[in-house]
Amino acid sequence: MRIVSFTIEGRPAYGVVEGEDVLFNPSPAWPDLRAVIEADALGRLADDVQGGRRVKLAAVTLLPVIPNPGKILCVGLNYETHRRETGRAVVENPTIFTRFADSQAAHGQPLLRPKVSTDFDYEGELAVVIGKGGRYIAREDAMSHVAGYSCYNDGSVRDFQRHTIQFTPGKNFPQTGAFGPWLVTADELPDLDRLRLTTRLNDQVVQDTTLDHMIFDVPRIIEYCSSFTPLRPGDVIASGTPGGVGAKRNPPLWMKPGDVVEVEISGIGVLRNGIADEQA
Amino acid sequence: MRIVSFTIEGRPAYGVVEGEDVLFNPSPAWPDLRAVIEADALGRLADDVQGGRRVKLAAVTLLPVIPNPGKILCVGLNYETHRRETGRAVVENPTIFTRFADSQAAHGQPLLRPKVSTDFDYEGELAVVIGKGGRYIAREDAMSHVAGYSCYNDGSVRDFQRHTIQFTPGKNFPQTGAFGPWLVTADELPDLDRLRLTTRLNDQVVQDTTLDHMIFDVPRIIEYCSSFTPLRPGDVIASGTPGGVGAKRNPPLWMKPGDVVEVEISGIGVLRNGIADEQA
Repeated sequence: MRIVSFTIEGRPAYGVVEGEDVLFNPSPAWPDLRAVIEADALGRLADDVQGGRRVKLAAVTLLPVIPNPGKILCVGLNYETHRRETGRAVVENPTIFTRFADSQAAHGQPLLRPKVSTDFDYEGELAVVIGKGGRYIAREDAMSHVAGYSCYNDGSVRDFQRHTIQFTPGKNFPQTGAFGPWLVTADELPDLDRLRLTTRLNDQVVQDTTLDHMIFDVPRIIEYCSSFTPLRPGDVIASGTPGGVGAKRNPPLWMKPGDVVEVEISGIGVLRNGIADEQA
Repeated sequence: MRIVSFTIEGRPAYGVVEGEDVLFNPSPAWPDLRAVIEADALGRLADDVQGGRRVKLAAVTLLPVIPNPGKILCVGLNYETHRRETGRAVVENPTIFTRFADSQAAHGQPLLRPKVSTDFDYEGELAVVIGKGGRYIAREDAMSHVAGYSCYNDGSVRDFQRHTIQFTPGKNFPQTGAFGPWLVTADELPDLDRLRLTTRLNDQVVQDTTLDHMIFDVPRIIEYCSSFTPLRPGDVIASGTPGGVGAKRNPPLWMKPGDVVEVEISGIGVLRNGIADEQA
């Protein structure tokens, strides 16, 4: 099942994608997709939207898949190709930093190059959405805590990321973290390893990997994150980007107004965003 | 004015401290202290609690000053004494990492040493609570965006903090970030520089500084943070800790069950917490 969060006639909604349509309940039982997941009700959603409205997917304005996650945990340096290009040390645990929810953007919404920088970079990633919450989740149980997956573009303002040893500033500019186009429920993707992640900037492939190249796989990331913080339904894990980022090219390849960036993961879909300048 | 967040008879509340009492409105106009700040209504609070209830401060269960901040931004390495003891480089911008709200603890509540570590360290800090939100706030205007101040103990699990180059895991264990005892409104503290910050572990002074020793002062921190993320009412900035942390002593001085840790800032008060082991 593919589920989108969106606005229609100015009101937030969520629904199930069927071909080129989205089916939704205009008076839903839960206020947003995060609440559906909290209620452990993803399985009832197909029934809930029957008898509701059917609109063209192209006619609605998408929101980030989870517009309001309580936590967004991002994994840095999780592919050997990216670790090597950055020159960072091999480590025994995932590198974790965070995004605030208000840094996110939807599929189709422009990513904003901030006024204060031109060093605006892409990072194509697999996003993992937590279903069942927990603390000290064992690796063997971790996949039962996943609601589903989507694409993430962890748009990074590299000079701010490198101001100090902590990445936070470069990873939290408004409308830089693209998340979409939809949630694909976990039952549809039983084998993550075979999935292929491709990032394209203006149709040129700039990142290309299969997900089995992650240094720390999804169960290990969930195990580690839940060892220091409780995971809750709707929390998001951006699981890291492969080699090929713009900052490590010679000359650097920055995203600029008018560009189009795409993150595609086989079995999930294509997350597409234009680039625009932040307005004053 | 001093304002506390607390629970009484199992219900959350907030009120104004008068001597040993707290005055509060059992049917308040705003649901919590963050909402009061969002409504720009701190100045009306003294009137709002008149005719309400008066209880002994000692009889209520305090909450973190802002129990539910949207953002907690923490400044690392913001005193020269601490920068030197860590061996970190001099940098031109504040080092920023984040805490989740569910890592906080109240004055009087035990701080939890997690099951998975014994390297549990104190960090006494000045907490700044944002009043008026904003983006790209100029340094000269920054102090008009402050609602008030409190004490923070940025309890740190040092081995997790050092697993990788990012501090997030060591700074987000549940019930490790003490925030209290109360908000002192900004009008009562016109000169931060003269304030003295002291941390005591079992009555032994382990950190002692005046706030004029901050490398980046509060206006500069607000300017920088608001350059990459919008600040909103009730957001919290933990402004960094001076030298003397337990990790840099020989032998290291860790907090352990039965200990009592205090962070005192002159003009604000004393934030006191026992240490307990996290239960299985």
